[in-house]
This record gives sequence, C-alpha cells and structure tokens, in this order.
Amino acid sequence: MSTTLKVGLVQQTAWPDKAESLAASEAALRRLATDGVDLVLLQELHATHYFCQYEDADLFELAEPLDGPTGERLAGLAAELDIVLVGSLFERRAPGIYHNTAVVYDRQQGRVGHYRKMHIPDDPGFYEKFYFTPGESDGSQGFQPIETSVGRLGVLVCWDQWYPEAARLMALAGAELLLYPTAIGWHPPDDDAEKNRQREAWTLIQRSHGVANGLPVMVANRVGHEPDRSGVSAGIDFWGGSFICGPQGELLAHAGQDDEALCIELDLSRSEHTRRMWPYLRDRRIDAYGDLTRRYRD
Amino acid sequence: MSTTLKVGLVQQTAWPDKAESLAASEAALRRLATDGVDLVLLQELHATHYFCQYEDADLFELAEPLDGPTGERLAGLAAELDIVLVGSLFERRAPGIYHNTAVVYDRQQGRVGHYRKMHIPDDPGFYEKFYFTPGESDGSQGFQPIETSVGRLGVLVCWDQWYPEAARLMALAGAELLLYPTAIGWHPPDDDAEKNRQREAWTLIQRSHGVANGLPVMVANRVGHEPDRSGVSAGIDFWGGSFICGPQGELLAHAGQDDEALCIELDLSRSEHTRRMWPYLRDRRIDAYGDLTRRYRD
Repeated sequence: MSTTLKVGLVQQTAWPDKAESLAASEAALRRLATDGVDLVLLQELHATHYFCQYEDADLFELAEPLDGPTGERLAGLAAELDIVLVGSLFERRAPGIYHNTAVVYDRQQGRVGHYRKMHIPDDPGFYEKFYFTPGESDGSQGFQPIETSVGRLGVLVCWDQWYPEAARLMALAGAELLLYPTAIGWHPPDDDAEKNRQREAWTLIQRSHGVANGLPVMVANRVGHEPDRSGVSAGIDFWGGSFICGPQGELLAHAGQDDEALCIELDLSRSEHTRRMWPYLRDRRIDAYGDLTRRYRD
Repeated sequence: MSTTLKVGLVQQTAWPDKAESLAASEAALRRLATDGVDLVLLQELHATHYFCQYEDADLFELAEPLDGPTGERLAGLAAELDIVLVGSLFERRAPGIYHNTAVVYDRQQGRVGHYRKMHIPDDPGFYEKFYFTPGESDGSQGFQPIETSVGRLGVLVCWDQWYPEAARLMALAGAELLLYPTAIGWHPPDDDAEKNRQREAWTLIQRSHGVANGLPVMVANRVGHEPDRSGVSAGIDFWGGSFICGPQGELLAHAGQDDEALCIELDLSRSEHTRRMWPYLRDRRIDAYGDLTRRYRD
C-alpha cells in the first residue's frame, strides 16, 4: 500500500430505475477518475431507490446475482477508469436467499471480493429483515477485509456502523481502511433537535471506529427525499453528510445534503504513527472479553 | 431508579498534597450538594498530583488501602451530604500490588463497590504500568457495574475509555450510566492542530459509547498544568473538557479548561426510549464475535 492514496466517494440521488441511478453514479465516477482517484466508495443500494421502506415481495425482482448486469457494469467501469470501486448490490444468491452486499472491483482484475451485510436493521421505514438474509459466519470468519491493489479494505454496510465489534474485527484482521456504504435519513415529522441528534450520533459513532482502531474511515450516504410508496409514512429524507476521516477520527472531508462527490489525498502512514502514539491494540484485555459473545449478561 | 437524576462532576486542579487536593474536592462537593445533586463523579486520582509522569518507587507511599484515610473521608462526605459519590484512589492492596481504583460510596451505606482499572496505559508521561497492577478477570467477570441507590453504575477509568469492549460489557451487564474518571492532557510542545485532534478524539470516543449502548456517559477530567518533576518533559497540560452526554451521545453539559463543576438533571427514561428506536442490542451478531478475544487475527 503506497503512503498516500487518492480516495473518493459519491453521494447521490437514486431512483427506482436502475439505468437512471447507475448513469448518475457513472457520471460521478468519470469526474473523480479525471481527478486521478484510486479508490471510490458508492452509497448503499445505489442502483435503485431505497425500496426497504415497505415490504413488497415483487421488489425481489430488483435483485441480481453478484455478476449480473449491475455487477458487470461496475466491473467494467473499474477496469476502464483504472480504479478500485466499492459498490453495493441487492444480491440474488438463490431463490429465497437475497443479501445486501458490498462488492469490490479492482481495476482490470474485476470482482476481487464481497461482503454480505451482517447486522440487518428492522424499524419503521427500514424493513431490511424482510429482504436481506444476514451474511453468515463460521464463528470467526464473518468480518473479513478484502485485499486489493490499494490495500486491505474493511468494507461494512450501514447498520454495521453502529457496532464497534464489526469495526474492531476488521481492524484485527488487518484492514487498513474502513468503508461504509449507507442509507440513512430522517422521518420528516421528527423535530429539528431529534434530527440533529440522529445525524450527529451517526457521524460520531463512525468517526469513533477510526479512533478506536487507528484507521481512516470513509462513509457514503444517500441524499434526497424518497417517498414511501405504501403511503404509510412521510418517506425518508436521506441526510447525506458523507465523510472521510483520519485515524484520530478527524474529519478530512465532509459533504452536505445535496448530490456531491468527495475526493482527497489520504496519508495512510498516519495510521501506524497514530497507533504508536496511542497504542490501544497493545492493551486490549482479551482475557476479559469473553462475554462479548453473550446476548446479555443476566 | 427514578426517571430523573441530578448528576454532577468535579473537574479540579490537584496537588501533591492530599489535604489540599481533597479540600478542593470537598468544597466542590458541598456546593453541588446545595444544588440537590444525587450522584457525583470525581476525576482520576483526584487526591494527588498525577504522579505517573515519572517512575519513582517512593511514590508508592501515596497509596492507601480501600478504606484508608482518603476512602474514609470520601465515605464520610457521601454520608453527610447524602449523595452517591464516585471517587478514585491509588489503592494499596498488598505490598507489590497497587491498583488505580474507582470507588463508589452510597449515602449512609458507605463503600458499596469498586472497580480496578483494567486497561493500563504506558506512554511518555503516563507511566502507569509501573504503578498499577491491572484489575483482574476470571474470564468474564472483569467488567461489572456497581449497584447503588441511584441505579447500576458502569464505572470505568481513563484508558478504558478507548475500548468499546469495556463499555459494551458494562452495558450488557445492565449498567444504566457509564462513568469515567480520567486524567488526560497535552504535551505542551505539540502544535494546536494535534492538540485539537487529541481532545476531539477523546470526547468523541466516549460519546460513542453512549451511542453504541444507548446510555448516558459522564466523564470527569483533570485541569491545569502539572510539571514533570523528573525534568525530562515539559509536563502535562490537563485539558479539562469534562462532560455529560445522553444516550444518543448528545452533549448535555460540557466544561472548559478551568476548575469547574457540572450539574444537570438527567432523564434516565430516555435510554430505553433510545434503545427502542435504534435497537442495536437486538441485532448483535454474537455468533460472529468470537475473534474479539484474540490479540490479532493473523
């Protein structure tokens, strides 16, 4: 892994129509490639609207195999633009087994790895447990970074972002960077104070994974209003706020609430420097962490 | 546990002389008691200067048994002022076994529990591995909250604050509030950008424990310059910045860089409300967390 890396992310509006959504992603990728970017992160389920606002079995039609048309298009872009690209697919693995999957394409190598979302949310407007089978684990292998030409990427997805366990397991497996494609927004009826608390909590928990593990973190979120086509709720206002932070959790780039791409030079040598100054990994009390595999210590 | 609780903390200058340091703590406690406070947190090793800036075997003389003169004085204040008090002692447990111990006194009940710092730092100016034997664990029992008349307190100490594992284990054991007595500051030669990154990282990692666990967090830090009496370094500028945040990590009270006491009404019912909205504990992948007890996944 070279010492500096030009990294970018795309925060965009998306539509039910894949062609329209992917065209917007592609346009942003081409602009970033002009800037010489090495690695780009797209937001969660960027090829469509956020369909998990309602439970509708017909929407499984949106899913594709890993190397279906959307995957092929992303692989082609990574090859043509000579970038490492982290995309997000609604994956059809088998009839009845669908996943929320982040996929990594490495320049001319094509697809080099994927990560199936392990923590699946379910709350009003985010009915993901209906659509997504959780990624599986054989006890210890669920959280594995993906080796690429720009380093070992700790790719996680959205709801995973609330779990320090997931970030830690990626760091312990040698991840050099944490990446979160996400889809989070406000319920329009909530008041401004609640909205601010939510967005701030979301920002700080992900920055904290950088701090706890001495790693940079990239987060790409959706933007814009998407209606609840079931008519039950007022829809979701995706809050944007995508960012890139360094290994002390320091914000290096931070998007607002509109379509936006971020691109910065990341100095990867700061991770080891930071871990030498504040050597948390040295002092973990692994003899006393056994109960982390319990649901509750009652 | 009543729904609201009046909580406070003391951020103070401390001196080598215990009488002088404890007199300052006592004065602050008496002022907080006048405001009707129920629970007060003192900073780490508040009875003395931060002697871990250098390694000097004579300084073990500062240590006392749990119920030595400093402990007795704190117990007496808790009883007289009718408060739950979380203090911090340099504990002499046996010749050659000394701990950095947080102790909880509950009104007229005296000492109701203690927590021996589990994660012990060692970096220039913070030579704690010389002085403190780490708190022990029988594999699962190292991180245990302390039951009091104001609820179950998840008391941790300073360096523990960088470990999401510690906060999580307290939450899983039913802690209703996380409390960190701490002693952290700047090396004066560092530049302002580095100082800001450090203080911000420290604030956000502790707020993140509130977010990840849906719990309020209280942090009491030292303030003021303390010289390095060994003459090796420029000493430490303790940065203060003590705070109280709610279960979404939202700052409710935040101190500056001078002697200060904070006191607020904390609405404890918000924790369960928050955990219902964003139910992280429901979705932990305990089947996939086994490697958290490994040093590194290599």
